[in-house]
Amino acid sequence: MKCVEEPIAGEYKYKGVIVDVRLDKARLVNGKVVNREVVEHPGGVGILPLDSEGNCYMVRQFRYPVMKEMLEIPAGKLEKGEEHLRCAVRELSEETGFESDDLIYLGKFCTSPGFSTEILHVYLAMGLRAGNMHPDEDEFLNVEKYSLKELLRMCMDGEIEDAKTIVAVLKTSEYLKENNIR
Amino acid sequence: MKCVEEPIAGEYKYKGVIVDVRLDKARLVNGKVVNREVVEHPGGVGILPLDSEGNCYMVRQFRYPVMKEMLEIPAGKLEKGEEHLRCAVRELSEETGFESDDLIYLGKFCTSPGFSTEILHVYLAMGLRAGNMHPDEDEFLNVEKYSLKELLRMCMDGEIEDAKTIVAVLKTSEYLKENNIR
Repeated sequence: MKCVEEPIAGEYKYKGVIVDVRLDKARLVNGKVVNREVVEHPGGVGILPLDSEGNCYMVRQFRYPVMKEMLEIPAGKLEKGEEHLRCAVRELSEETGFESDDLIYLGKFCTSPGFSTEILHVYLAMGLRAGNMHPDEDEFLNVEKYSLKELLRMCMDGEIEDAKTIVAVLKTSEYLKENNIR
Repeated sequence: MKCVEEPIAGEYKYKGVIVDVRLDKARLVNGKVVNREVVEHPGGVGILPLDSEGNCYMVRQFRYPVMKEMLEIPAGKLEKGEEHLRCAVRELSEETGFESDDLIYLGKFCTSPGFSTEILHVYLAMGLRAGNMHPDEDEFLNVEKYSLKELLRMCMDGEIEDAKTIVAVLKTSEYLKENNIR
């Protein structure tokens, strides 16, 4: 795969906590030089925890940029140098208290390849058991239980609007079907 | 749905062509004041064109932020004040030359609700016909034809890595199944 836009200069316009913003000059194959805005993000992992009874464990939280509460799979940003499998184990435990004996990688995706470097990895977590970690009862307050079938309907009906959650739910449904699981 | 993070101040840190970046102060329900980074994006529309023989029309393009070529559904940003259906009609025509007699709305999603305002609307375009517009032959060079089944496999195998494309392909497969189409 050939690189058709070659970076020739770059300058940071903003250095933040979650994102940095870079303005680059890039040379196209025809020699023309163009500006390219790049929002740098560390990337992250989302995990769909599915128990043996077909229940999924979801997190509801307020999302400031879009000013609404959203129902999402447990997820978190990659720490510096962290491998995505390790991040999946950590975030699953931190957000739900579960450990998983069967973490299945459902792939990665670019949330907005036109302006952002963010890549999210998605896992299906089966073989769930209560872990060593016991978060305060408060930390469970925002964990909600839904059947996979219900989540699929909510993705199709537009009740679920988060990219990683739609990808995880639809890929999981397809994965279980392909592998004749349940 | 109650707002649990109230904006109390904001300042633009970067004003760009595709994105602006704002740093806000927001008050949580417990009274604590926190910083919130927000990348403002106009949002956009993606369209999966599906013809009567089961072929889909895709676009391959280099994506600078992730430094790779990606296979994606035709898509584009919303122009100021543009309604998303109008944008779907426009982008379908501009990128493939098609008009559609049967545009089906598959919903919207937030690409990265943790830091970005970007919302993408996804359409399935059936009833395709060559439109009034006839782009130069050059403009067709990056349009590629795949069966929906092949695209589904490519989403599951990780060959397709673009969020809106994965959402459109998986939602379309589910939509056709639910409605007993083909």
